[in-house]
Amino acid sequence: MSEAAYIAVDWGTSSFRLWLVDRTGNVLGERRSHEGMMAAGKLGFSTVLQSHLRAVGAADGLPIVICGMAGARQGWVEAGYVETPARLASILKQAVVVQGQDRDIRILPGIAQRDPKAPDVMRGEETQLLGALGVDAADDALVCMPGTHSKWVRASGGTVERFATFMTGELFDVVSRETILSHAVAGADEGEDVDAFKSAVVAAFEAPAFAANLLFQVRSGQLLYGGTPSSAREKISGTLIGLELAAGLAEAPKAGIMLVASGRLQMLYQLAFDTTSVPVRSIGAEDAVRRGLAMAAHSIWNV
Amino acid sequence: MSEAAYIAVDWGTSSFRLWLVDRTGNVLGERRSHEGMMAAGKLGFSTVLQSHLRAVGAADGLPIVICGMAGARQGWVEAGYVETPARLASILKQAVVVQGQDRDIRILPGIAQRDPKAPDVMRGEETQLLGALGVDAADDALVCMPGTHSKWVRASGGTVERFATFMTGELFDVVSRETILSHAVAGADEGEDVDAFKSAVVAAFEAPAFAANLLFQVRSGQLLYGGTPSSAREKISGTLIGLELAAGLAEAPKAGIMLVASGRLQMLYQLAFDTTSVPVRSIGAEDAVRRGLAMAAHSIWNV
Repeated sequence: MSEAAYIAVDWGTSSFRLWLVDRTGNVLGERRSHEGMMAAGKLGFSTVLQSHLRAVGAADGLPIVICGMAGARQGWVEAGYVETPARLASILKQAVVVQGQDRDIRILPGIAQRDPKAPDVMRGEETQLLGALGVDAADDALVCMPGTHSKWVRASGGTVERFATFMTGELFDVVSRETILSHAVAGADEGEDVDAFKSAVVAAFEAPAFAANLLFQVRSGQLLYGGTPSSAREKISGTLIGLELAAGLAEAPKAGIMLVASGRLQMLYQLAFDTTSVPVRSIGAEDAVRRGLAMAAHSIWNV
Repeated sequence: MSEAAYIAVDWGTSSFRLWLVDRTGNVLGERRSHEGMMAAGKLGFSTVLQSHLRAVGAADGLPIVICGMAGARQGWVEAGYVETPARLASILKQAVVVQGQDRDIRILPGIAQRDPKAPDVMRGEETQLLGALGVDAADDALVCMPGTHSKWVRASGGTVERFATFMTGELFDVVSRETILSHAVAGADEGEDVDAFKSAVVAAFEAPAFAANLLFQVRSGQLLYGGTPSSAREKISGTLIGLELAAGLAEAPKAGIMLVASGRLQMLYQLAFDTTSVPVRSIGAEDAVRRGLAMAAHSIWNV
């Protein structure tokens, strides 16, 4: 077995993922938990990290590179922001050292768009971007990164020019759980209704202004015509993703679109792009963040 | 004091309002409570009604006309729907008698739009419409009725041709309380920020596809530029109302717009219409429903 060279951590709002990595990028060990920023803020970031380091048998002195909300103001150590237009290479250079630790721990900064007409921030996705595009990406790119807060990023020549965050995932969550539509989706099983999803995507994509009406139709449609809870859930999902695509694709992309996503989100967004006849190249979100963290480790410690 | 001729009740999902009315439409007594359909379903509709009749001193035998969710399937007695294109006069004719009562009690039906591409229902608003337009309205009308579930109605020659429901009020509620934006609005006071509201209306009205992004900007804007919780609340409100107006006004209205609303909603929607330079005629929502119930009472009992 090869020797570990560094430790990579993706520390989000509600999730923690750690990888023990060798010089060639192979993963030697891995940890996943729900001790994201929210939980770690109470337990102590150092305490959480130490317990995972022990569990994975990390040797003393191995350096650690971290991305995500651990670098937020409410996180462990504030890692600030690189400002747009943001060179991806600057992310590597502006990593912040966590002081008073018995090993070298660095947290990567986020990216901020200080435009009063479109203020925006990301933290964690910049590392996925780095991994997806590479530090010296010469081409134009439009990158869609779905999630609780989806990001759409325009990059060119290794620089993030603009980006926009959409509350799609969080809206899906509260609309399905906390509104009158919760009755329509109650009891939804894993069964998928691809047709319901696709028609909802098309409807919202073509008439985004009607989003709040299309959502209500999930209820009135069930009342007047019946339909399964799963189909209601897929309609809510399709409406919100179609709305997001209408904005993300409002300006014709200069280049092909890159979708950075995993699992169910990857499947749904791929389907949504197919439905709107927009070709995309898909990259796994976790691959992308690990690759980004590897680039940072290589740049900082030459490992 | 003149003599009571009938009792009018607006029985919604979460509110109950009762008026004791004389032959000329004067209100002789009034009751308001939170015993809407939800509460009355548990307490018993008859029990709730009797207690308010006693409190207002209603004489035996006075007839009662009711509109709203008391006529829903989960309500007291299902009053069905008039289907679009729905003559307003049909609402009066299809009132349902509540059986087994010691006085004449009628519940007015709702309106359903059985269009698989735009299924929709209303219950209670049809009576407001009746009051706002009159039973023999000859003109074209576009009526905006804001609320938890806002209704936009196209009527012509006394007939409801089409309508659409928008979940605007409910979305405002869950987005402000249950998402990351709850931090941005925490501690908001009664103070208003008219400018924040107006710019949010314009932004969403002009680029409705970006609604989920404009909502996120409430947070990122506060993070990067500061701003009060009240201003954050007004931005959420303005974004969602601007989105609704973008849909409601997508097709140029054939006639002037009528706004049926009261209180704070009346103020906000009036401001939103002003901001988008759309003239509206405003009618109080409660006046409208009382007038509609009076028309029903007159038509049924000639009182």
